[in-house]
Amino acid sequence: MTKQKSFSKIGITGKPGSKAAIETIALLSSLLQKEGKDVFVPQRNYHSSEHKNTQVVPFSELGQHCDLVIVVGGDGSLLKTARELIDNKIPLLGINRGHLGFLADIRPTEIEEKIPPILAGEYSLENRFLLHASVLRDGKEIGQSCAVNDVVLYPGQIAKMITFELYMDEKFVYHQRSDGLIISTPTGSTAYALSGGGPIVAPENNSIVLVPMFPHTLTSRPITVSKEREIKLVITSQVPHSPQLSCDGQEIISLQPGDKIKIKQYHTEMSLVHPLDYDYFEVLRSKLRWGEKL
Amino acid sequence: MTKQKSFSKIGITGKPGSKAAIETIALLSSLLQKEGKDVFVPQRNYHSSEHKNTQVVPFSELGQHCDLVIVVGGDGSLLKTARELIDNKIPLLGINRGHLGFLADIRPTEIEEKIPPILAGEYSLENRFLLHASVLRDGKEIGQSCAVNDVVLYPGQIAKMITFELYMDEKFVYHQRSDGLIISTPTGSTAYALSGGGPIVAPENNSIVLVPMFPHTLTSRPITVSKEREIKLVITSQVPHSPQLSCDGQEIISLQPGDKIKIKQYHTEMSLVHPLDYDYFEVLRSKLRWGEKL
Amino acid sequence: MTKQKSFSKIGITGKPGSKAAIETIALLSSLLQKEGKDVFVPQRNYHSSEHKNTQVVPFSELGQHCDLVIVVGGDGSLLKTARELIDNKIPLLGINRGHLGFLADIRPTEIEEKIPPILAGEYSLENRFLLHASVLRDGKEIGQSCAVNDVVLYPGQIAKMITFELYMDEKFVYHQRSDGLIISTPTGSTAYALSGGGPIVAPENNSIVLVPMFPHTLTSRPITVSKEREIKLVITSQVPHSPQLSCDGQEIISLQPGDKIKIKQYHTEMSLVHPLDYDYFEVLRSKLRWGEKL
Amino acid sequence: MTKQKSFSKIGITGKPGSKAAIETIALLSSLLQKEGKDVFVPQRNYHSSEHKNTQVVPFSELGQHCDLVIVVGGDGSLLKTARELIDNKIPLLGINRGHLGFLADIRPTEIEEKIPPILAGEYSLENRFLLHASVLRDGKEIGQSCAVNDVVLYPGQIAKMITFELYMDEKFVYHQRSDGLIISTPTGSTAYALSGGGPIVAPENNSIVLVPMFPHTLTSRPITVSKEREIKLVITSQVPHSPQLSCDGQEIISLQPGDKIKIKQYHTEMSLVHPLDYDYFEVLRSKLRWGEKL
Repeated sequence: MTKQKSFSKIGITGKPGSKAAIETIALLSSLLQKEGKDVFVPQRNYHSSEHKNTQVVPFSELGQHCDLVIVVGGDGSLLKTARELIDNKIPLLGINRGHLGFLADIRPTEIEEKIPPILAGEYSLENRFLLHASVLRDGKEIGQSCAVNDVVLYPGQIAKMITFELYMDEKFVYHQRSDGLIISTPTGSTAYALSGGGPIVAPENNSIVLVPMFPHTLTSRPITVSKEREIKLVITSQVPHSPQLSCDGQEIISLQPGDKIKIKQYHTEMSLVHPLDYDYFEVLRSKLRWGEKL
Repeated sequence: MTKQKSFSKIGITGKPGSKAAIETIALLSSLLQKEGKDVFVPQRNYHSSEHKNTQVVPFSELGQHCDLVIVVGGDGSLLKTARELIDNKIPLLGINRGHLGFLADIRPTEIEEKIPPILAGEYSLENRFLLHASVLRDGKEIGQSCAVNDVVLYPGQIAKMITFELYMDEKFVYHQRSDGLIISTPTGSTAYALSGGGPIVAPENNSIVLVPMFPHTLTSRPITVSKEREIKLVITSQVPHSPQLSCDGQEIISLQPGDKIKIKQYHTEMSLVHPLDYDYFEVLRSKLRWGEKL
Repeated sequence: MTKQKSFSKIGITGKPGSKAAIETIALLSSLLQKEGKDVFVPQRNYHSSEHKNTQVVPFSELGQHCDLVIVVGGDGSLLKTARELIDNKIPLLGINRGHLGFLADIRPTEIEEKIPPILAGEYSLENRFLLHASVLRDGKEIGQSCAVNDVVLYPGQIAKMITFELYMDEKFVYHQRSDGLIISTPTGSTAYALSGGGPIVAPENNSIVLVPMFPHTLTSRPITVSKEREIKLVITSQVPHSPQLSCDGQEIISLQPGDKIKIKQYHTEMSLVHPLDYDYFEVLRSKLRWGEKL
Repeated sequence: MTKQKSFSKIGITGKPGSKAAIETIALLSSLLQKEGKDVFVPQRNYHSSEHKNTQVVPFSELGQHCDLVIVVGGDGSLLKTARELIDNKIPLLGINRGHLGFLADIRPTEIEEKIPPILAGEYSLENRFLLHASVLRDGKEIGQSCAVNDVVLYPGQIAKMITFELYMDEKFVYHQRSDGLIISTPTGSTAYALSGGGPIVAPENNSIVLVPMFPHTLTSRPITVSKEREIKLVITSQVPHSPQLSCDGQEIISLQPGDKIKIKQYHTEMSLVHPLDYDYFEVLRSKLRWGEKL
């Protein structure tokens, strides 16, 4: 593999207030500056322990200053940062705290071994598409968000099923009564959709997977469709309790009967930086304990 | 939709000996010749009831004479014909006997209404990719076949699990102990793979789906990967009972421990002719009774 | 089958305000009085259309006056009435409105044919056990309810998993992170638990079935245990959002971290009256369309 | 817990020819004789390494001489021994080689710690019911066997579905087209039936679980029924390939179209000896890694 572009202006971000993140950010900050890099830390992650030359910038400007952003935290932190910085088209690298993640694939103990080669251009870039959900009420958009993992339709009240219609490219697919629907990217297929019985969709698939949640009809099954499809949900429940839409389990939009939800591929993809020895199947094997026997 | 190429030389084939197929073939043969078409019927399907101008040709030459082949029968007949004629690159049209099929979507009762517009160029063409499986023993190919639906690895003896290794593009994925593995095209995703808990993969997905059969490890789950992947299975079972490989449940190859099975996209795709009102989701809805409530 | 005790004092109840229920109650009321029975209707179901000799009593006293209560409505109405009248130990008979139910197995059109023999003693009685859930906070019971179908633990907020510990007879079973847990009777096994992937548990099984909802650990599976078991859940989620407990999806109790939920068989069983030709497997076949082929 | 009857005449059996079993049998033999017990070893397991006072008896007479039989091996060995000795009503104790088993719950390394208290009466006894399958052709029994785990109906040929009818107590339940049917005891519910999507059925449940294998109808689901039920399968496949019936995956009976299979609880139960600290849920937790997070 030929060398890629090296990185020189590097942002570091993490979960504000997390002690573990603070330590790792300080360690990274020193290492990067020793390597002669410019380091940018958002205000919310800045602590006195950072290297003295670290530049503090508003989080929202991180994208203008950096050519790589390192996210310290679990997959949840990376999801959040990815949505926030998606329009800046900056490559992201995840350093995991705690369990190995699907997205954040470097451990804090591997920083000194794995970061320098990446900065020098020895890495692979992987694009992952995002979804975009827009909620229309009486023809007007009342909410919207990107999702790296999934858009999920939930009932607004426990123990109440929701009814909705599903359309693809304006063609009617089905009317469903269930606890909701997960619409997931390949990235999200190993997250909530997997708990719900969906397939694992390798990242190279240009597919969206739809997983019905506790469907009333036993023949409702997970289905994958092209990411070119435009998906539309129409809430047909008549009851006044308000269903909800979640993006990555982090952004919530409240719905009403009659609302239309349009979901399609977002115009910009997320770019993930991996060490050269990254192996998607090894991550799967490790996370899912595929070697283990019953 | 602008008109497509019209058809003038039409083959008709069906399950040899089936009384229902004979009747439908005779009906079709008359209709097509009334429309001024040249009709070709393979020797094995020829009966005195056919129109007197019907030309009888060896099945293997059907591809040289025709620009459309109509298959009378269920999905099983269409699978078989598709594999046999795949290299001739002739569009196929299925006329179902019995239940509505996923592939054969015209009913005998609809022939007079739906066939003439298709012959005149009012149709849509849909390409479906096939898989090709090749079995290597000591470096030599000992068997191979195409599959429209699926390649399935089975144990050779009941009540005995099989062990094998799975590789993708020569990268190790997992070692599995199970009742076998289904490797399916999108076309096959609504057949055996669906019974095994796999997702429905809409035809536009360029994906292969792998469904483990009764895996010993509970975290083994269906996975979809790009059709560009080259899949390799290595039989590691030590026991002398002979595992088997099936293509579309119709072609069977006997295996031995140590055999390698290479599975990849076949170089030629199948071309299906659909009436203009064909709707994949309507077929799903109808076959899976998605409207039905528990 | 020898004759059972005949019924002479019969209560009729239904969903208040439902026009369909009003009509069926009036029809039943006339039929029963023609048969020489005493008829009792709760105040909330009384309308001028009832037979003039119908006695109006408070719903809560229905149990003291009647030796049979007929519930007009779907399975939901029967669940509610069964919980309310359980301590009166009165047999219940369900007359379905709309779809055939699992519990209410006589259709309005069958009333004249099927009710008279039942009144005369030609019926079978089937006992179904109920669950009882009690929520303890700091050692004090803060809520309790019976459940005919199921007790369900839910997160209090969408898109947030819940963590809890499960004990059986004070023995630790597992710590789980999931969307919740369904604890179901055999009666409930064909309702919500079935949508969640649980097994069908025939009514003669003295079993409780636990179905994890979207569990974070892929090896979490439905499990059935004896109805003699005392089940305890301890909410270990630290987050301040309040999880909830539902009984039959109709009674809701709000929970807090640290709450203990004790679930065991209720001391009294529900007694269902069936026509002599009742067949549990026929109901399953009809509701699940077991005859249907893919 | 009060003491149970102590054991004085002890049989030891294991997989003939297994080196690991030979070693463990020799170790056990010495330990037991040091404790003053009479030790019996079947001819097939006798090796010169055994203690000189070990008595060698035909395997079939083990039951007449012993009040406890220790099985050295995995769950497979215990299944086999249990079926062979079931009519002798002798308690069985399993010592596992390799992985921890569901049935054999003492490890070779725990022998010196855990065996002496058991011999002295500090143990619990657990009864597990078996199934008995009998195959009738033209009214005559052509084969029969017990099963500790499961009776499984398979097609006789790969890639061919089987069709059969299911009856319970002579009542028709369903007609199914599938890859077969697993009929399992609670003991077998953590074995093959679990791989097939069945529920875990705790041993105290008096339930049989039926798990359809790759059913053609998506609404076919696992069902548990009372062990008092008499189950009947009728093979309706017309094709001449011969379906097969397996008991515990070890006894195989070949079937023909029209054969009737009667399956019911066997008249004698298996009696398992457990150390006092045995905990079914701990075994589940350990085998299924319930603590593990995705």
